[in-house]
Amino acid sequence: MAARIVCFGELLLRLSAPGRQLLLQSPQLDVHVGGAEANVAVALARWGHAVRFASVVADNPLGGAALGELRRHGVDTARVLRAPGRMGLYFLSPGAVHRASEVVYDRARSAFAEAAADAIDWDAALEGADHFHLSGVTPALGPASAEAALRAARAARAAGLTVSFDGNYRGRLWQAWQGDAPALLRQLMAEADIAFADHRDFALVLGRSFDAEDPERRFAEAADAAFAAFPNLRRIACTRRDVHSVDHHALCARMAVRDGARHATPGYTVAGIVDRIGGGDAFAAGVLHGLRSGMDDDAALRFGLASGVLKHSLPGDFMLLDASDIAAFVATGQFDVRR
Amino acid sequence: MAARIVCFGELLLRLSAPGRQLLLQSPQLDVHVGGAEANVAVALARWGHAVRFASVVADNPLGGAALGELRRHGVDTARVLRAPGRMGLYFLSPGAVHRASEVVYDRARSAFAEAAADAIDWDAALEGADHFHLSGVTPALGPASAEAALRAARAARAAGLTVSFDGNYRGRLWQAWQGDAPALLRQLMAEADIAFADHRDFALVLGRSFDAEDPERRFAEAADAAFAAFPNLRRIACTRRDVHSVDHHALCARMAVRDGARHATPGYTVAGIVDRIGGGDAFAAGVLHGLRSGMDDDAALRFGLASGVLKHSLPGDFMLLDASDIAAFVATGQFDVRR
Amino acid sequence: MAARIVCFGELLLRLSAPGRQLLLQSPQLDVHVGGAEANVAVALARWGHAVRFASVVADNPLGGAALGELRRHGVDTARVLRAPGRMGLYFLSPGAVHRASEVVYDRARSAFAEAAADAIDWDAALEGADHFHLSGVTPALGPASAEAALRAARAARAAGLTVSFDGNYRGRLWQAWQGDAPALLRQLMAEADIAFADHRDFALVLGRSFDAEDPERRFAEAADAAFAAFPNLRRIACTRRDVHSVDHHALCARMAVRDGARHATPGYTVAGIVDRIGGGDAFAAGVLHGLRSGMDDDAALRFGLASGVLKHSLPGDFMLLDASDIAAFVATGQFDVRR
Amino acid sequence: MAARIVCFGELLLRLSAPGRQLLLQSPQLDVHVGGAEANVAVALARWGHAVRFASVVADNPLGGAALGELRRHGVDTARVLRAPGRMGLYFLSPGAVHRASEVVYDRARSAFAEAAADAIDWDAALEGADHFHLSGVTPALGPASAEAALRAARAARAAGLTVSFDGNYRGRLWQAWQGDAPALLRQLMAEADIAFADHRDFALVLGRSFDAEDPERRFAEAADAAFAAFPNLRRIACTRRDVHSVDHHALCARMAVRDGARHATPGYTVAGIVDRIGGGDAFAAGVLHGLRSGMDDDAALRFGLASGVLKHSLPGDFMLLDASDIAAFVATGQFDVRR
Amino acid sequence: MAARIVCFGELLLRLSAPGRQLLLQSPQLDVHVGGAEANVAVALARWGHAVRFASVVADNPLGGAALGELRRHGVDTARVLRAPGRMGLYFLSPGAVHRASEVVYDRARSAFAEAAADAIDWDAALEGADHFHLSGVTPALGPASAEAALRAARAARAAGLTVSFDGNYRGRLWQAWQGDAPALLRQLMAEADIAFADHRDFALVLGRSFDAEDPERRFAEAADAAFAAFPNLRRIACTRRDVHSVDHHALCARMAVRDGARHATPGYTVAGIVDRIGGGDAFAAGVLHGLRSGMDDDAALRFGLASGVLKHSLPGDFMLLDASDIAAFVATGQFDVRR
Amino acid sequence: MAARIVCFGELLLRLSAPGRQLLLQSPQLDVHVGGAEANVAVALARWGHAVRFASVVADNPLGGAALGELRRHGVDTARVLRAPGRMGLYFLSPGAVHRASEVVYDRARSAFAEAAADAIDWDAALEGADHFHLSGVTPALGPASAEAALRAARAARAAGLTVSFDGNYRGRLWQAWQGDAPALLRQLMAEADIAFADHRDFALVLGRSFDAEDPERRFAEAADAAFAAFPNLRRIACTRRDVHSVDHHALCARMAVRDGARHATPGYTVAGIVDRIGGGDAFAAGVLHGLRSGMDDDAALRFGLASGVLKHSLPGDFMLLDASDIAAFVATGQFDVRR
Repeated sequence: MAARIVCFGELLLRLSAPGRQLLLQSPQLDVHVGGAEANVAVALARWGHAVRFASVVADNPLGGAALGELRRHGVDTARVLRAPGRMGLYFLSPGAVHRASEVVYDRARSAFAEAAADAIDWDAALEGADHFHLSGVTPALGPASAEAALRAARAARAAGLTVSFDGNYRGRLWQAWQGDAPALLRQLMAEADIAFADHRDFALVLGRSFDAEDPERRFAEAADAAFAAFPNLRRIACTRRDVHSVDHHALCARMAVRDGARHATPGYTVAGIVDRIGGGDAFAAGVLHGLRSGMDDDAALRFGLASGVLKHSLPGDFMLLDASDIAAFVATGQFDVRR
Repeated sequence: MAARIVCFGELLLRLSAPGRQLLLQSPQLDVHVGGAEANVAVALARWGHAVRFASVVADNPLGGAALGELRRHGVDTARVLRAPGRMGLYFLSPGAVHRASEVVYDRARSAFAEAAADAIDWDAALEGADHFHLSGVTPALGPASAEAALRAARAARAAGLTVSFDGNYRGRLWQAWQGDAPALLRQLMAEADIAFADHRDFALVLGRSFDAEDPERRFAEAADAAFAAFPNLRRIACTRRDVHSVDHHALCARMAVRDGARHATPGYTVAGIVDRIGGGDAFAAGVLHGLRSGMDDDAALRFGLASGVLKHSLPGDFMLLDASDIAAFVATGQFDVRR
Repeated sequence: MAARIVCFGELLLRLSAPGRQLLLQSPQLDVHVGGAEANVAVALARWGHAVRFASVVADNPLGGAALGELRRHGVDTARVLRAPGRMGLYFLSPGAVHRASEVVYDRARSAFAEAAADAIDWDAALEGADHFHLSGVTPALGPASAEAALRAARAARAAGLTVSFDGNYRGRLWQAWQGDAPALLRQLMAEADIAFADHRDFALVLGRSFDAEDPERRFAEAADAAFAAFPNLRRIACTRRDVHSVDHHALCARMAVRDGARHATPGYTVAGIVDRIGGGDAFAAGVLHGLRSGMDDDAALRFGLASGVLKHSLPGDFMLLDASDIAAFVATGQFDVRR
Repeated sequence: MAARIVCFGELLLRLSAPGRQLLLQSPQLDVHVGGAEANVAVALARWGHAVRFASVVADNPLGGAALGELRRHGVDTARVLRAPGRMGLYFLSPGAVHRASEVVYDRARSAFAEAAADAIDWDAALEGADHFHLSGVTPALGPASAEAALRAARAARAAGLTVSFDGNYRGRLWQAWQGDAPALLRQLMAEADIAFADHRDFALVLGRSFDAEDPERRFAEAADAAFAAFPNLRRIACTRRDVHSVDHHALCARMAVRDGARHATPGYTVAGIVDRIGGGDAFAAGVLHGLRSGMDDDAALRFGLASGVLKHSLPGDFMLLDASDIAAFVATGQFDVRR
Repeated sequence: MAARIVCFGELLLRLSAPGRQLLLQSPQLDVHVGGAEANVAVALARWGHAVRFASVVADNPLGGAALGELRRHGVDTARVLRAPGRMGLYFLSPGAVHRASEVVYDRARSAFAEAAADAIDWDAALEGADHFHLSGVTPALGPASAEAALRAARAARAAGLTVSFDGNYRGRLWQAWQGDAPALLRQLMAEADIAFADHRDFALVLGRSFDAEDPERRFAEAADAAFAAFPNLRRIACTRRDVHSVDHHALCARMAVRDGARHATPGYTVAGIVDRIGGGDAFAAGVLHGLRSGMDDDAALRFGLASGVLKHSLPGDFMLLDASDIAAFVATGQFDVRR
Repeated sequence: MAARIVCFGELLLRLSAPGRQLLLQSPQLDVHVGGAEANVAVALARWGHAVRFASVVADNPLGGAALGELRRHGVDTARVLRAPGRMGLYFLSPGAVHRASEVVYDRARSAFAEAAADAIDWDAALEGADHFHLSGVTPALGPASAEAALRAARAARAAGLTVSFDGNYRGRLWQAWQGDAPALLRQLMAEADIAFADHRDFALVLGRSFDAEDPERRFAEAADAAFAAFPNLRRIACTRRDVHSVDHHALCARMAVRDGARHATPGYTVAGIVDRIGGGDAFAAGVLHGLRSGMDDDAALRFGLASGVLKHSLPGDFMLLDASDIAAFVATGQFDVRR
């Protein structure tokens, strides 16, 4: 059954060097539209949910084109506020072999980051919706964005929506304005029913550390502490990524449920990675889709991981495969040409 | 010594997404010319054989361009019939990592598929030739094509040519018109001296199964049954492909000879695949070249496998390397830059 | 004031040679989405109207991508029926200098053309709308499409919508199935409030000729005859195109109103044409926008012509400029860099 | 004889849509490096002068790449200050036919614009140089940049260099910070030996208008007033551009000399324009080269106009032709293939 | 009726900057195959004649690819000699507006230029042919090539073929080895039945000048002198090109016949030129086709001019249109989209 | 501390097939600038050293563009001699899977190879420098180049610079002119303080073999013999490459010091190689940088290997990463996105 979901966050343009070149090694840039919450929105819309995007986007041709990309994938952009200002950009040198991909952020003072905390009318934006999704990127952008994120999450909870929150800690952004990340993220986490977060996120938010050497146990301890600290929280899900080289990772996933259940998937080897960006968002979208579509927790987690894994095969930030493709991969993993 | 070979089949245009994108993720398509029998024709022509292509091709600029590609590689297209109608197309999303390549066929009602069973004058088309090659794709296209394939194979045998037949079972095509695949393929197999087919092909054609767990034994049993059922058949060759991920396969090959000899090659790991389509055709062409060039069966099989393996390094459907490159790879396997 | 408009027609993929090459001169194709009615829909949606597209589109990745393009530009595709089958395609060699652009159609037996005449539920599709637009391409596709067009136009009129009809005579399509173009187009014209048609369209439909040498008079006579024959018709608009070379045209426009008013614009020189396809659709959309936005007839005609002229500067089938850009061009014609 | 020239200004990245597309119509951008003063620097360096660029450039890979482009053409970048911050960007939709090119600026708060007025050590930057060039873009960027421009011009004059100043009035930039353009530009003009400016620039700076209908007389009156107001000024040069359509202009040039001499060139038709940006900078560079290379005023003006005209045939902001190519064009105008 | 034609000359690779860029302005090159005689061969083969190419081509992958291009268009390459050595290359900066296209030759010491004068067995190469075509480029390459050209022309005449010779004077090539152009070209002209040459060619060859101001008379005088000097010569044809700017020319054609007839065509304006290279070869091919297809002289000349004019609309060196396209252009000149 | 370094060698253009295509499989070539010594020069210049390139380069637009690329990366090209003639080219089919990359050289008779042995004024070229680098490619080009290399190395030693020599044995080049490689390389080796060479280089130069099965011992024996034979030699460094497939290698490095110290690094797996060309040059540059920057021998060797390994991730011949990127990789090896 399709859900009615609202995602809130900044829409960004990614400008990346073609092939495996460095930035401006040759004079062309490939452009992709993305942003942690937009990525979730696109995946969920492609899978049949009614997804509305809430944001503030520059009132220029770049902002218009970026919104067009969301619409192309079925996201409702009618509630997006257009405002004077600039689009947030980031430049990417895609890595290879032992050379890590490198991001040059140019997102400061975007129309989104400069928007007033009350720019969005949340009564209107949330009307008729079941679920609200946001991430830890938004509060990292500055005090107004942090305040906006908090207002949004509280409005959603007040309106009876369930809330999901993806930790997405971005140290560089917090440092730029000396924001109090632990305090702000803690307030947001307190509004969430579902958190996409691992032991590092909770260590930051709770001001303590989870040092067990065994990753299962580390996650379990962090989950216990999180459920204790955040009474609204019902589910915690995260992936664990082992990075062997730039284009060769391994991924597995875990979920903790307030009732005590703990789920863990087997791992996938991900070699010959095409584009790693958006993998975490595809995971979050996959788990949300699973839970919203009537899968049990374990199936939802496996769907989420499969979505995250398959994202690595797609250029751009978005998870563009059909839900049926992902389900087929979970079921069988057929790799030869489908014809 | 160069042979005079006729290949018969449909010529197709492949329209594929560039890079590792999904179809129309960005607004460009790369075009390659292909088709199971055309692929064999091009390889054999590049290796010095006198190859004639027999087909019916749309009388429009697309058909003209596709034929130009065959000529470019040295195939004689003077006997190809041009007819009103459309070119057979297929659209390809090239896969990556765990996402399988996907084909969207748009080949129904092509000029080839709509051609009358007697459109081609086989006396003229086969004149002066030694060998005739066709595949199981043609009879799968519809009753007229099936009848045409049968006429062609019988005309070739009647004219004293040797005949090779590549099983190439395409379930989707047979289903589209409810064709009796086992019966029709059996009739074609009956005309062949050489079959490129494995135990699944023979199980279909002979209406029985070969279930031995050991792949060697399974192939041996299928070969025994095939030699018993098809008195004209002298050699059976096939590859076995293990698919670890979309761009990481392993390949080995086997040949059975009516006199009882059984040949098997060691396997190759094929990692970082560039383009998997046409691998089977390159294998068939390689075996035919080996046999026609005076290699013994074992050497011909190894040449065929090397050709099939090397095809995975080339964009497009065609095997474009020189025979000497393949022979050098069989002999040594030198991988560093040749300069 | 924004109108609520429904456009009905086939969605096509244009596959064109890049640069000024011939088809497959090099192995790439640029892809654009288009179709006479889709082009109108996109322009009107970009200019702020609530536009719904009604169609039958292939249920495969190509159809999905084509619909995504409409959504990208703000067209509502929720009512489009997805059906098994193929997308209509056309291949384009863009012309230059004295070499005309050439279209190779490959649209026969598309999912749209094969759809039953009653495939679309017009009560639902027209619900809440003010205006309905269709063109003479649809009835040209075959008897079912012709019947579907007629049902659609009649349902729209019955539901109280105004109807616009763009003549768009395509001889090659009518000949393919020996359709009775005059009779069918006449029935459609009878349902229209606004016809985009010139003296040649009316000559065909009315079975007579308009031979006055003076183009003004020729148009006036055709308009008089049309208003007499079609009591529902209130406005007729068309452009006149003088083609000096492939990339150098001149365009002017005329409108006749049932009340007797006759409007004519001065001409524009259009040199260095980037893409001529969709020029007529941009004109029709412009006139509709003008009339729906409260312009008087003369202003609407001038806006329509400006839209049609400016389309020649844009690659692809769609008019992608803002209404304010077009209005500015009508007002001033500023040609130097805007910065 | 080669001069030693210092150019001061902001280095920008231009991100433009490929072909004649609108921005992000397809997901690629072409990148060019430019900036009014950098364009002058590159032309002069390619023509054999020792050119040093003085600027503040973002200390990130984009800034590094932009400086690499200057070095590639022979400009000395050793004195450029690298600073934290962002690169100034501008996005371009190249126009066509009747659709004007459109610039979306994204240059606010660049490392250059944010630099302190005394960031550059002018003693070092000007050491050993003969001539200093700047433009009216720099003071338009904000109070610090305006102050920096003034300090630079005064330091140059104090150090005995000749100074050229290109008016380059950018209304949108001045408005953004409510800068007093007339006052600031007047102060800069007062330091110049050579001004690239027309009657509109002087009207702004002198707070009066030059309304003669005859363009010759209008320029003459403005020049008289300018020489009266600015005792350091010895030469004034400008082009006059008639814009027939986006890709069809006409250009001529004029020079006024303090001693009373007035020079005017015949006009050139410039049709089929490839890239109009940088045309004014190429003109300024050409005049400076002519004067510095021992041409008389008239020859220098004709060389400058030829340089400006030929720039319209080159993609990107830079004039990349050799001085000998330009001289040959002045002399003969040979248009057929040179082989 | 199709003729059997042999063309002899060097096959070249053209490496050109994409778009209107200068060479290596960005790091890509477009590659086209060409050469004056190969261009004629391709056009004639596409128009249905049996064309054989005689040449010496480098025995490396570049040479193989170049020959593949000839085969693609239907030229028989079986008689081409492969030899160690390099391919002749030329680099092209395509011009625009007032900037002329510029060729950088890198063809010295190619396998062709280094071939012995008797490398080709002319008895075999000419067997069964009706007509032989060569140009003045070949003798310009060096003494061996000059001798080879002479042997070829004499062998053709001796074997009863008609001979056509295209003047194609290339001063830079002759200067490189101080070849006696007048003497060598005179000997070649003496073997020709048809010369593609104008008054400048004959002035060079005959050591005199034709100075009449009226171009008709100048051509007539040169033709008279040529018929007097070369008893084998029956027809002389040439174009006259007026070059208004780099992408705007005008072309007309003339033919003189030994019997005294003089033909002249009206002129065509050729604006918005896509690629000017190969225009003269397309003209020569068109005239030969006309004469060989039973057109009268005047029709053949008009067909030749139309072919030359239309070539300007096609990227690359080859005339790729069908003969029916050219005939249609001669007949009507239809410029709007053909659909 | 930055050194002042002079590199001497030929500058080449690499023209390579895009993607993983064969040469001219599609009609485009990617262009990179390179050459063993230029590659070293670029890396060292990017890392902050003052690098001067000494060479003879064709006086045409291709040569100009190639020099521009060096300047872009900070190399001083003021001392490069421009001379009539051609640029050395090489064409590359980049390999994949089991298909080796293949180079087609077209560098014979370049302006560099044709230059006189005394073309360069070494007093001027070496003025003020600390270190001189050359390789075994230069003497392989012909007797004049061999003599030039020897003069250069001797002049450098005489002027008190340290000298590094990279063996870079190219059999095909030596064979082309039957040069006495052992004798000439021995003379060059005698001038070197640092040799980048392995046991095969020393076997060639010393006319003996080093056959120990253990690679450590083989290198040790060769180093002992080399130190004995070449009294100026203080350090020998080399990599060992194990080639598992075309895009999967393993690399480790060794250094021997005259004082007896022997250093060896652990190995790196290099899978998913982007571009293998220039890997050895990046290693040499890295070692030189390490030694010149005050690292101890072991650290310099590890820096060199890291540089060589990371080069495999970059398209083109040049090592374009910052020294800090390489140092970070040596220290930690962080592979996930840096943002």
